[in-house]
This record gives sequence, C-alpha cells and structure tokens, in this order.
Amino acid sequence: VPRWRSLGEDGLIRRIRARFPLRSPEVRIPLGDDAASIRPPAGADLLLTTDQLLEEIHFRRATHPPDLLGAKALTVNLSDVAAMGGVPRWFLFSLFAPRDLPDAYLEGILRGMSREARRRRLVLLGGNVSSAPLLALDIALFGTLPAGRGALRREGARPGDGIFVTGTLGSSALGLELLERGWRWRRGRAVRRGAARAYRVAATRALRSHLAPAPPYLLARRLAMRGIPSAAIDLSDGLSTDLARLCAASGVGALVRATAVPVDPAVRRLRGRGQGLDLALHGGEEYQLLFTVPRSREPRLAREVPRGIARIGRITLRRQGLRIEREGGAVVPMRPSGFDHLLHPRPGTRGPLR
Amino acid sequence: VPRWRSLGEDGLIRRIRARFPLRSPEVRIPLGDDAASIRPPAGADLLLTTDQLLEEIHFRRATHPPDLLGAKALTVNLSDVAAMGGVPRWFLFSLFAPRDLPDAYLEGILRGMSREARRRRLVLLGGNVSSAPLLALDIALFGTLPAGRGALRREGARPGDGIFVTGTLGSSALGLELLERGWRWRRGRAVRRGAARAYRVAATRALRSHLAPAPPYLLARRLAMRGIPSAAIDLSDGLSTDLARLCAASGVGALVRATAVPVDPAVRRLRGRGQGLDLALHGGEEYQLLFTVPRSREPRLAREVPRGIARIGRITLRRQGLRIEREGGAVVPMRPSGFDHLLHPRPGTRGPLR
Repeated sequence: VPRWRSLGEDGLIRRIRARFPLRSPEVRIPLGDDAASIRPPAGADLLLTTDQLLEEIHFRRATHPPDLLGAKALTVNLSDVAAMGGVPRWFLFSLFAPRDLPDAYLEGILRGMSREARRRRLVLLGGNVSSAPLLALDIALFGTLPAGRGALRREGARPGDGIFVTGTLGSSALGLELLERGWRWRRGRAVRRGAARAYRVAATRALRSHLAPAPPYLLARRLAMRGIPSAAIDLSDGLSTDLARLCAASGVGALVRATAVPVDPAVRRLRGRGQGLDLALHGGEEYQLLFTVPRSREPRLAREVPRGIARIGRITLRRQGLRIEREGGAVVPMRPSGFDHLLHPRPGTRGPLR
Repeated sequence: VPRWRSLGEDGLIRRIRARFPLRSPEVRIPLGDDAASIRPPAGADLLLTTDQLLEEIHFRRATHPPDLLGAKALTVNLSDVAAMGGVPRWFLFSLFAPRDLPDAYLEGILRGMSREARRRRLVLLGGNVSSAPLLALDIALFGTLPAGRGALRREGARPGDGIFVTGTLGSSALGLELLERGWRWRRGRAVRRGAARAYRVAATRALRSHLAPAPPYLLARRLAMRGIPSAAIDLSDGLSTDLARLCAASGVGALVRATAVPVDPAVRRLRGRGQGLDLALHGGEEYQLLFTVPRSREPRLAREVPRGIARIGRITLRRQGLRIEREGGAVVPMRPSGFDHLLHPRPGTRGPLR
C-alpha cells in the first residue's frame, strides 16, 4: 500500500494543503470547509475556466515527469486566463489517483504544481481526492479582469485585421511524436540511446515544449492592458482549428500566408519544411496566443512588441472562409485539422494522445 | 460510432450548450470563449466548490438511470453550497465520455442535468468534453453569500451546543446495497424479480435516496438567514465521519445519543434496529445537513423549524472526543467509520462503490 493511501482522504488533503500555503486577502473562507469563499476585489470582473489532464488521453505516466505534469495541469488553465487578458488568482484541484500510484510520482506532481502555483501567486481554494481507475489532474482556475478594461475575446475580429501568433509553432506536436518514438526527458534534456548529439538539441527543445509549455503570460497581459487586439484565443488544439473557432465567433474568414507561419526551428531541423509546416498549422498543445489587430493599431503593436510575434495573415469576409496562400502563391482552402478528441481516435502528432 | 462522437468536440459542446439556455445579468462573457466572466453582485461573497461522479467509483452505469445521474452530479455540489448557507448560481461542467457511450445514455444525462439546472436556476458558464476510458461528470459550482451574513462553517461549534440533523439517515447506503443485490430503478420505483410487494415500498424509498438525493435546500437557507446554527456540514461521507470533521474544525468533542438518531423508516423495516443504526451512523451520501445550535438559540430553532429535524446529541469538550450513548445508557467512543476512498477499497454499504 502506497503511503499516501494510508493517510486516508483527510490526511492526504492536509498534505496537499500544506504544499500550497499561499493565502490572499480576498479569501474569506479558505479551503477545508464544504466550499471556499472569496470577496471579489471591487471593480474587477471574475474569469472562470476549467481543464483536465487525463492519463492515456493527455499524457502517459511513463513519459511525463511528474513535476512537469503537475505544473502543466496549471499551465493549460493559466493559458486560458491569459488569453482573455486576465490575471490568474485562485484555483480548485481535484486529484484522481489509481490505487497503485507510487508515492514518488504523487510527490512529484505536488512538487511541480506547488512550484508553479508559487511562481504565479495562485491560491488553492479547495478540491477533492478520489481513488480512480486512472490518474487525472483536474483544475478549475479563477482570475480577475479589471472591469471596463476590455477582455480579449474570440469575437471581435473584423475583415482587414492582421492575424498574429506569439512564439514558434509545431514543437509541442513534435515533442509528443518523439516521446512516442522512445525519447525520454532526463535531468532537463531529451535522451535516447544512440541518438546523435546534434539531434539531441532539437529534441530537447521539442520535448520541453510538449512537457512544459510556456504560454506568453506577460505579452498577453500587456496586449490586453494596451487594448491592442480585436480578438484572441489560445492555441490548444492547433492553429487551423483554433483560428477557425476565432473566425466562427467573429463571423469572419481568414487568409494565412504559409511562408509567414513561424515554424519552430527544432521542427524545421527534424522534419523539414513541408512536414514542419503541417505540424505548425495543425499540431496541438502549443499554448501560444493567436490574436488579431485592426490595421490602425498595427503600428502601435510594432512599437509595443518589437519581437516575439509573427504576422501570419489577415482576416477576410466570412464567405471567403479559411484559406491559406501556399509558398508558390496559390490560395487554397485550409481545413481545420487540429486535434479533436471525439473525431480522431489516434491523431498521431496532432495533439493529445487520442 | 455513436452520433455524439461524429459531432466533434465543438458540435457536442454546442449541443450541451443548447440544453442550458439560462443566462443571468452578472454574466459578462458567456460560455464559448477561453474563459467565462461574471461581474459578482455588489455586497455578496462568492462560494466555490467542486465535486465529481466517476464511473465504478461513485456509480455504475448499469444501475444508475442517466437522467438521475446527470441531476445527481449537480446535487452533490449544490449540497455543499447549501451547507454553507449560500445561493447556487453558476457552474462549469466537464464531461469525460468513453468512446462507446450510447447516445441514449448521454442524452439522459443531459436531460436530467438540464432539468435540475432549470429547477435551481443555475447558469452554465463553460466546461470541457473529452474522450476518456471511463464516464465521469465533473462539476465546479459557484454561489453567492450575502456579505456580512454569516456563512455556515464547520468551525463554530462550542461545548453545550445541541447537535441536529435534517431528514432521516441510512437510506442512501441501503439503496446502494439493494442495487448491488439486483434491485433496479424502473419508471419511478424499485423492482426486482420475485420481490414481495411490501418490501418494494421500502426499497423504492431507499433507491430514490441513493439515486436522487434531495438535500434540504430551503431549510439550510432559512437556518443561515436567521443565523441560528453555530456550525454546519453536509453529510456526504457518513454521520460519524462528517461529525468528526466538524468537531476537528471546531476544536470540540461530541456525544451522540443512539436512540435519537433518525434511522430512516425503510432502513428500520428492511434491516432492523441494530444494523439500521449502523447504516444511519456510518452510511455515506445522505446529503442531509448536520448542524449545531447554541443552547440559547434552541428555542428559536424550535419555533422556526418545528419539524423535519432531530436533536441527536450535544457538543462536548475536545478531550472527551467523539462518543455515543448506547440504548442501555453505556457511553462508548464512536469511531469515524464512514466512507474513505483511500482507506477502504470496498466499503460495501458505507458509501460510494470503492
């Protein structure tokens, strides 16, 4: 019997609690009662989101170091709050643990999650523990948004707006592919028996991107504060799918220039140009920010954010749909082919495991 | 392929959304974006809680009618907000669905949940859908609490306070036992081949209590508004366990009188006096309210709530621990023996399935 189980529910809850000591003045009733209570800061709206990591669906225990997994459970939620232009503040954490989960793996999860919570100043407000047939980390995250200050929504894009992405794309999907092919994360880098050293640098970059994604928190916050974007969405299921969602919400179309898509250097190196572009367009779990900017504000954007973003195309009329301009200049429809849990049982490199 | 899967994630989300049309003026950004946003009503604190129902842990698909299951996923959360004296308002719903989940079962879940959401005026703010190896319904529920008006917390009980419970106890655990022994819920009543008609009435009461628990929402609200209880907790894991939690939070002990515990009539009928008391003391998932009242307020309680509650004992000094006075008058320690997910792999009648 693992030690964590012999603690019983209340004992394990106390142990989890001790890992998240941060409190905040808004908390009126901290975790430990039937429900927690906060007094929302005056003049702020509240943001609410939830996301889960399920074993064999979103991760494999054998390939995901537990501390990175614990942190990632927060990251996927933090990315949503950041993509709205908000400040993350409080969270609930429910843990589903198989009866044979090793103590060391559970400890690793808590260590990684608590480190990330400290870094982002998140206060734990409650949650749940339950035995379960599979390991799952379930987070509900709450943030604030200064009232009146515009949230970054999906629905504000207009024809003529520029389309931008932060960072580079395709590396998370490549990282997943490499994990499935036997690469492992050891002490901060990718390893695989017999792999060439030159290959390893790119593999490390890809694995890190998948195991420990780093959304552009500060950049998203700055864009929101300055009121620059007309719309935004975080890239969780692949550029083609998430751009389609933004366009649907805004009632517009989009034209993407293939040559402008920032394919990650590791992806270019290990997969070449064509397949690399495919990963960048459709690979999931990037957690970069996709946003649109009215032409009149593009000069301000260039001043405020001189680097780290790429202009990949422009918003068009709805009836023109989603299109991509290929390298040679041909314009063809772009099908949303990112990850879909329900449609694609085995997306391969397209996102989570199935 | 079930029809719901061919809808894809966005299609299924749209379908779920359509089942929860209720909106509220506090909602600034409704479901459908990266995160939802509310502007909390002025002068109110916010309550936050989360609870999940996992297949084979908290329910079996073969024995839990889907509409009752969908409603119960809300109920277990509503019970927490009620036990704090709050008003439930908004929720997030994440669905984990095995790939072969029949359309009819999923439809039943949504029908039951949407009916319960309408009844309680709950607004859906977001959530998630994911394929998963097991069926799970995951709810995060948010409510309001008039600021300044005291929440019903676990920590306010003092020696001398009376201990009260609402309703009757033991029937949910009995209902689970009957389901495990082949009883089934059909068209509003319990059935089993060859069962005597007289038995059936009691079985129906027990199965209903387990499949469709009904927390005392109005009573909890009234108690909170009148400021009568010194402490409160909802009975989710068994009286002995939840009373121990209330006592630990309050730093007190308790003496329960066995003859005063309101054993459910169906339990008395089908299990007799001794085993019936055992179910009432330790059986889980009752979702009744356990609360304490200072002696000075007991007369007001009697006037405000003339029926539907039982005074089962009194709060004592911490060093006296948790005790029970048996029928003959002997006072013995009472061990918290309710359900614990981690300690008891197969609690039998003591709570959820394992």
